[in-house]
Amino acid sequence: MLMEEMGEEALLIEVRRLFASEGDDVILGIGDDAAVVDAPAATKLAWTTDMLVEGVHFQTGWQSAEELGRKSLMVNLSDLAAMASQPLYALVSLAIEARMEAEYVLDLCRGIKSGCDEYGLRVIGGDTTASGSGLIINISAAGSVSGDAMARSGAAPGEAIVVTGALGGAAAGMRLLAAGTGDAYPGLLRAFRSPEPRLAAAMAARDAGATSMTDISDGLATDLRHICAASGVGATIDIASLPHPPELDAACREHGWDREALALGGGEDYELLATFPAESVDGALKAIEQRGDVRAAVIGQITADAGAISVIAPDGHESALKTRGFEHFRHD
Amino acid sequence: MLMEEMGEEALLIEVRRLFASEGDDVILGIGDDAAVVDAPAATKLAWTTDMLVEGVHFQTGWQSAEELGRKSLMVNLSDLAAMASQPLYALVSLAIEARMEAEYVLDLCRGIKSGCDEYGLRVIGGDTTASGSGLIINISAAGSVSGDAMARSGAAPGEAIVVTGALGGAAAGMRLLAAGTGDAYPGLLRAFRSPEPRLAAAMAARDAGATSMTDISDGLATDLRHICAASGVGATIDIASLPHPPELDAACREHGWDREALALGGGEDYELLATFPAESVDGALKAIEQRGDVRAAVIGQITADAGAISVIAPDGHESALKTRGFEHFRHD
Repeated sequence: MLMEEMGEEALLIEVRRLFASEGDDVILGIGDDAAVVDAPAATKLAWTTDMLVEGVHFQTGWQSAEELGRKSLMVNLSDLAAMASQPLYALVSLAIEARMEAEYVLDLCRGIKSGCDEYGLRVIGGDTTASGSGLIINISAAGSVSGDAMARSGAAPGEAIVVTGALGGAAAGMRLLAAGTGDAYPGLLRAFRSPEPRLAAAMAARDAGATSMTDISDGLATDLRHICAASGVGATIDIASLPHPPELDAACREHGWDREALALGGGEDYELLATFPAESVDGALKAIEQRGDVRAAVIGQITADAGAISVIAPDGHESALKTRGFEHFRHD
Repeated sequence: MLMEEMGEEALLIEVRRLFASEGDDVILGIGDDAAVVDAPAATKLAWTTDMLVEGVHFQTGWQSAEELGRKSLMVNLSDLAAMASQPLYALVSLAIEARMEAEYVLDLCRGIKSGCDEYGLRVIGGDTTASGSGLIINISAAGSVSGDAMARSGAAPGEAIVVTGALGGAAAGMRLLAAGTGDAYPGLLRAFRSPEPRLAAAMAARDAGATSMTDISDGLATDLRHICAASGVGATIDIASLPHPPELDAACREHGWDREALALGGGEDYELLATFPAESVDGALKAIEQRGDVRAAVIGQITADAGAISVIAPDGHESALKTRGFEHFRHD
């Protein structure tokens, strides 16, 4: 059945059933002019929003509808993780073509719901509308913050730069999907299709003394520049220390890609990038691996040279970081 | 300068300057992974989201960029008004074509900002991304709720149905803009381009004993059906009592439009639709007009016949309401 046959009202009945959330602190969920919540007292709220556009962030053929729905939520949860915030609520806006299969839209919602169940948050509202061209998904999520908010602005000279997981896998996976040749690299496809927000790792990092934190959505180069700009510091990155996913080497050899360029500029890895004082970094790595269930590695150091980011090549040669991360609008 | 020349980072610098909001309860505004707020203690939060899609909700030539930005915010504030909620924060997501003029995007943001200043809320975050085809604006807004949330579900048989302002003007304005022939009807164009959220009127209605409330975004027929469905009641509408804007008669005569169809099904009027017990309705009308600075009128009555909505024609003939409000996806 197409959306134009099902109609908006029938879709909303299904969506309300799927995301039923009233009770506890949700006074009004989906179905009124706005959701109303009784937010937990004495905590701060972190609040983020992300828009995914067909043809820009995804093609419908690149993953199942469930995977796309789940990922749409995960990119928001990754932002909340970067604030060491515990997910609470989400609002979902969908712009849908009238000739889209209704079942596709419902599967997309089921993917969002499965992500909600996994990470303990509830969809309490949203908006559905028509799109003239392509699917657009905007999710806005809110979470609670205990203690100080974990900003990008706290890094200081001499501190260690740490990343979780591995870099470059999502960008490689997207290239493989675009080329239609990814069967040999399921791990890279998964990195693009099914990112995991590093919520537990983020809490561990905060508790272990992280001074700044962000998630790597635009690529390490851009996201590190954000930390340096917000903190008024510089950084040196040791290229040899960048963690790569297991299949990346082989995929780069087969396709002639530059592995370091993917790790530095690829984006969509949704790993954490954080800074720690030298004396707490060993404990932080252990805490992230134990509580966060993900490897963490030191990849460089914060310097006093505001805005300057240099890279040390495996042969010891130091040079200015030239890689740009992903930036919309510009294609240079 | 085009967006692809300006680039995302330069846009964000301007946007951050425009919406600077830190201090007071905004701990982190635009520029980190998520905004962080210290929400007012002991109040509930209402939270809404609305997506406006080029070619569906607007054409860029139909209003200035400032008007479009302001309206994008107003449709959210209208939702908050319907909950009798005081606006606090907003997040703005924009999907922009690389070949769009950067100045257009900045003017759009200035329009949002002017609406913020007018109604006392702050943009604390958002997302900018590329669009393959057309401009997409998603705004999510949160407000505080004192006392009980004003839901759609409290209407009871015998109660009076009240609307603020006039109906049908926005839909007529959109038709005039689509036809390129609106010069003779500035009030109808204004109704479409520059809706005013009825925040003060909504507070007055709540304090005067409103039992249910919604805003008229999809047309009176659909929004009244929402109240009836949520409350388990029916309704009778007196067609002769529907308030029309001054220019609507002349526009309908000139273009052969059905005035009542526009008032019942046109949508986008962003007026309030509320119900009151018979004994409090006179006081409510006065309170809305005084505190809310807008006329309010009784247009019918709630009945016990769940789901049944009838209309009484000016000649006294009663029939079932057939008008459908605006529904996306369906074009029947």
